[in-house]
Formats: sequence, structure tokens, C-alpha cells
Amino acid sequence: MHSKEVALKKHEEWRGKLEIQVKSPIKDKSDLAIAYTPGVAEPCLAIEKDESLAYKYTGKGNTVAVITDGTAVLGLGDIGPSAGMPVMEGKCALFKTFAGIDAIPLCIDSKDPEVIIDTVYNISKSFGGINLEDISAPRCFEIERALIEKCDIPVFHDDQHGTAIVTCAGLLNAVKFTGKEMGKLKIVISGAGSAGISIAKMILRLGFGEVILCERKGTVYEGAPCNNSEQEKMAKVTNREKLVGTLADAMKGADILVGVSKASIVSEDMIRTMAKDPIVFVMANPVPEIMPDLAKKAGAAVVGTGRSDFPNQVNNVLVFPGIFRGVLDARAKKITEEMKEAAARAIANVIPEEELTADYVLPEVFNPLVAKKVAEAVKKEALKSAIR
Amino acid sequence: MHSKEVALKKHEEWRGKLEIQVKSPIKDKSDLAIAYTPGVAEPCLAIEKDESLAYKYTGKGNTVAVITDGTAVLGLGDIGPSAGMPVMEGKCALFKTFAGIDAIPLCIDSKDPEVIIDTVYNISKSFGGINLEDISAPRCFEIERALIEKCDIPVFHDDQHGTAIVTCAGLLNAVKFTGKEMGKLKIVISGAGSAGISIAKMILRLGFGEVILCERKGTVYEGAPCNNSEQEKMAKVTNREKLVGTLADAMKGADILVGVSKASIVSEDMIRTMAKDPIVFVMANPVPEIMPDLAKKAGAAVVGTGRSDFPNQVNNVLVFPGIFRGVLDARAKKITEEMKEAAARAIANVIPEEELTADYVLPEVFNPLVAKKVAEAVKKEALKSAIR
Repeated sequence: MHSKEVALKKHEEWRGKLEIQVKSPIKDKSDLAIAYTPGVAEPCLAIEKDESLAYKYTGKGNTVAVITDGTAVLGLGDIGPSAGMPVMEGKCALFKTFAGIDAIPLCIDSKDPEVIIDTVYNISKSFGGINLEDISAPRCFEIERALIEKCDIPVFHDDQHGTAIVTCAGLLNAVKFTGKEMGKLKIVISGAGSAGISIAKMILRLGFGEVILCERKGTVYEGAPCNNSEQEKMAKVTNREKLVGTLADAMKGADILVGVSKASIVSEDMIRTMAKDPIVFVMANPVPEIMPDLAKKAGAAVVGTGRSDFPNQVNNVLVFPGIFRGVLDARAKKITEEMKEAAARAIANVIPEEELTADYVLPEVFNPLVAKKVAEAVKKEALKSAIR
Repeated sequence: MHSKEVALKKHEEWRGKLEIQVKSPIKDKSDLAIAYTPGVAEPCLAIEKDESLAYKYTGKGNTVAVITDGTAVLGLGDIGPSAGMPVMEGKCALFKTFAGIDAIPLCIDSKDPEVIIDTVYNISKSFGGINLEDISAPRCFEIERALIEKCDIPVFHDDQHGTAIVTCAGLLNAVKFTGKEMGKLKIVISGAGSAGISIAKMILRLGFGEVILCERKGTVYEGAPCNNSEQEKMAKVTNREKLVGTLADAMKGADILVGVSKASIVSEDMIRTMAKDPIVFVMANPVPEIMPDLAKKAGAAVVGTGRSDFPNQVNNVLVFPGIFRGVLDARAKKITEEMKEAAARAIANVIPEEELTADYVLPEVFNPLVAKKVAEAVKKEALKSAIR
């Protein structure tokens, strides 16, 4: 059977990838009197007096909402809230599988950022954290920003930060492996949507070097007429030489190419114009910006993709389970830049320096150490900071 | 240990009465490629083309949201959204235990009916049904009415209809047992909030006889200055003799007393003024309007309460699991009056006429036949009607 048919058949068989399991057995009247009336009044009254006791007496502290509006689902685009649900359910399954977190998939039937912000805020007390997912740029920036400000629980847009964290983890190791010098590097990012911008910010913060963002029409530069508000902001801290040109122009002499854009838009010739031993992370899905074998043939020292059938898979699942486990365990109210950096370094450090190879700069998705190490690092950082 | 302490200790031990279980195993890359990317794109695309396929490829068809604003939780009143969560979790545990339904507890941090309506509507595509819970009257009427109109899934305010259905089921059997004549009865309802009004409506619809509603200040009559809008509506179809008086005045000669009001407000003397062999359902919790032994001493032929330690427990758990099982299985878009009536009759009919006694007019909460029979009856009614 073709793999697409298998996926469809399996989804039909499951009719939902999640189910509720009851932790409080209700087999007889005395069970009922404890888990429900009249006993349940006790935790209710305790929480009424001190709302923080919701973490003690309800599932809040282990529950995360995975929320989409269906506007940027996978590579499929704006397919609507209902059609986004299989992905949200899958994400929730990963939360449980990798970090024991009870995640609830929710889709919002509106594209209006204000409506989305209000809706998520209004239900936020039900959860210990909120994972925003597959919301199109630039709306996602506004929505995340507002929710982080309003909510007293961590809000995390995985497409931005999860992608940035795992990409930077891989780049940290690739730089180490190739012996390149941090701070002196030239990084080109193809794709200036939510992922590209978030990666650019993190690369700058971690001090890799200078960044040029490219989008469909070419380099992102200050004052470019088609910049959206986020791109214009980024243009003030990237592409300082104000290069106006194509992706190919930008790539000349670059040490690192990060692709979060489109299939097959990078040629071998373009790779050959890069600096010596270039690092190429091409994560367009399912077909990368250039296939790994071609990139290597053209001289790439390390190649990463979004795919599981090539080495160095840049997969957010290395990030979000551990990062939420960490903030939930620390009961952090926000996910700070320091926590994100801690997460990136924790992922990178799962591979001892002496084990790094060109094909092994990122841990395997199913390496059970990853979520554990990320959670520990994030929790430690959270406990250090005042953001609790 | 005192039972209150046990309840608190158990809630602390559980830290949430529910957890997510993953139905789609994710043990290796091939699992991941089916439950998540790239395989998950197939059900997404299928649902994008035909939204009804959400019932086939996601958990929608077995998932119900249990939603409160925390304004009328149990007998505790307005304790706020977070403090309402232990009850919502308990309710979800009952949904799973009695009907295999995956229910998600959600609390809304607003008391504004419009905000609540919008919030619930905005997330409604994530679910196959919505159970509203513990929302204060008269706001609950407006909220439920608007959501029923807007949503294309069943919306059910359990405090109204669940209570009405199980009360009527018990009354049907009590009338049968006492040999009273349907249509000729005088029914007094103490309590004119969401439960009392919903019970009144159903009693009228089922043709028991005439109804008088009473609230704190006395009988509800047309034009009474303290009537809220719902009470004024009810005043046009109840208390046709426009009796202005106390609960005691109303009870004189009544065949049935239904109490959804306050502890100990009914005396033996008041019971003695009722018609011969009166039926007394006194459901104030935890202390009923009159204790069953006193009611019986004063001549009550059948006594029901909300408590599990007395016979004839009038408990909504006899209703909501089966009614939602039925509408989910039929994929009904609404819960009609006919379905509610079918549910009431199904509950009543679980007890064969020859087994009815004064202490057995309602099935036991843990009788596994109840949810099954209710689900069958509701599904049958739903398939008959056009409301699908």
C-alpha cells in the first residue's frame, strides 16, 4: 500500500490520535463521592482561596493547549481550522510520548488576530502552557506577543522558536565540527516568514555572526517596499551592508545557509560560491532547497534537512516536549530568551564533541536523552530567573 | 481521616483526574511518518475538501468540551473559573467512565455572556459536542440559546436539561407507582433558577399537569416585580390562577413537590397540606429541603433526593453520558425536546413496572444499562428527526 493510503487508513482506524484516560477510578458511590460531589467541593474551595493551588489539585500543571487557526499548516498553507486538527493531534501525541505532557488540540475558527488572542486568553486558565502552532506570518508575531503579555502561563509559537532552537543547536555543533570561528560567520537565511525571522534572531543572539535574510523576491533590506512590519524590524539588524540582490547574490562567500523556504531553489553552483566548508541546513519539506547529495557534491561540509530519511534531521520534536516539561516543572510564567538558548545548547551537548561527524551534528529524534536534558536545562534557567 | 481530608488528599495525589493517552503509537520514525509528518498531510487535505471527514479522521466525533465560567459551581456559587476545574475534571471522568466519551474540561475567564458565547463558538470546531456546566442563571439561558443557534454541534446545559430529564424520569415512575393520574396533577417547584425552570418546562411538555414555580420570595406569577426575564416567560405558562403567596401556600393540595432550592425550607406540616400520597423530590445539596425520614413521616409516598446515601438519587450522571453518546453516535447537530423526552422515558423504563417501589423509582447511578438505554433512545430519536 502506498504510504499516503497507509496514513489515511491509520487515521480512520484511530479516529483521533488521543483519548482521555481517567486517573481517578469511579467504580462505586464512594469513589464518586471523592472525585465528584460532595468531595470535589474541597479542592474547589481551596483553589477559590488561592488560585495557585490549581497546580496542586487539578491537571493544570501538566496540561498544554496546542492551538491553531489552520492558516499555515505544515507546508499545506491555509487549510482551515478543522483540517489542521490531525496535525494538532499528532503534536499532542508527541508531547505525551516524549515528555509525558497532557496536551489538548484546539482549533480556532477565526483568522482575526484579535479574536484569536481573546479566545486563547479566555480559556488560558485551563492550562499550564500554550503551544501556538501553524499560524501564518506576520499574524503569528502579533498573536504570540499579545498572549505572552496577557497570560500568566508560558506561550510558545513552536514554528518560530522550536525551529530556531533546533536549527541553532545543529549549527552550534556544525560550527564546532568544521572548526569555524563563532562571531566571524556570514549566515544567509532563505525564507523570511515566522521560522526564518525567529532563526535570524537566535543566530544573532548566540553571536554566530552577521545574517542576511532572503525572501521570494531577494534579500531583505531596510526600506524594501515589500517588507512586512517584522521584516522591516529585522532589516535594521541584518544585512548591514544593505545588499539588494538575489539569494544567489547573498550566498556568495557565506559560511552558513539556512533554508526554510521552498523546494529546489538552491543549485550546486550557488553552494560552490559559498565560503570553504559551508554548512547547509535546507529544511523545506518534503523537498529541501537542495538535495543533500548535491549539496555535498558541491562542497557542503555539513548538511541538515527536515527529513527523517537523511542525516541531521532538524526536527522541532527535539525541542517542544523538553522545553514545556522544563517550564511546567519550574512553573515558569514565561519562556525567556535565556531558556531558549539553554534549550539549544542542551540539544547540541547531547552529542559529545568527539562523536560529532558531518552526518551527526543533531541527536536522533528518538534519543530519550534529548527531552530530559532540555527539560533540565530549561528548568534550571527558569529557577534562576525571576520569571516565575 | 475525615472525608473532606480524603477528597483533598486524593485530588493532590491525582493532580488532575484525567490524562491523555496516545492511540497512535509513536515508537520509531515510521510511526512518526504516519501519525505526524509527512503522513498526517493526507487526512488534513481530505478534511480541507470535506469538513465532515473530521468525524472520520480525528477525535471530533467522540470528544465533548465541558465548559464553565465558574459562576454557579455545585452549591458553592461564583467561585471563579480556576476553582471550577475540579468539578469539570470530575464531570469529564464521568463522561469517560459511563459512556466512553473523551471530554475536555475548559474554564472561561469571563462573566460576560457575549464573551463566553464567542469564546465557546470560536473553539467549537474542535469538538463533537459542548456540555455547559455550572453557569449562573439567567445568563446560562442566553448563553445556551446563542450557542445552540450558532454551533453545528449539540450544545447542552446540563444543569438545566440533565436535571430536568432525570427529575422527570423519576417523576414518571413515581406517578406510575402511586397510581396518580397524568395530566391532572398539581406540581410545585421550589427554586426558579436554571434547574427549576428547565424542570417546569419538561413537566409541562410531558403533560403531568399544572405547575407553580416558587423562588425565595414566594410564588412566581405574571408581572411579579422581581421576575427575571426567564421567570416572566415561565409565569405565562405556570401558576395560571396567579397565586401570590409563599411556598407553603403553593404546596397546599399539591401532588408533587420538586425542590431545587435550599436546605430545610420545607416542614413536615407543609408536606401534610399536600394531596394524598404526595411525591417529594427534594434535591438541595448536600442538605435537602426536608430530610426523607421527616417527609415520609408526614405522609410522602415517594421521596427522592440528590444524595447517594438515600434511595431515589436524582443524579444527572444518569443522563449526560447517555445523551451525548446518543447524539455523537447519530452525529446529531442539536439536542431536541424529543430527544430529551426519549432520554427521560428511557431512564424511567430501565425499571420494569413490577419492580417499582417507593424507594426505587430511579435506577442506581452505577446501573450500566442506563447510559446504554439512553444512548439508544436518543440516537433513535435523532435518526428519526431531520436535525442531523
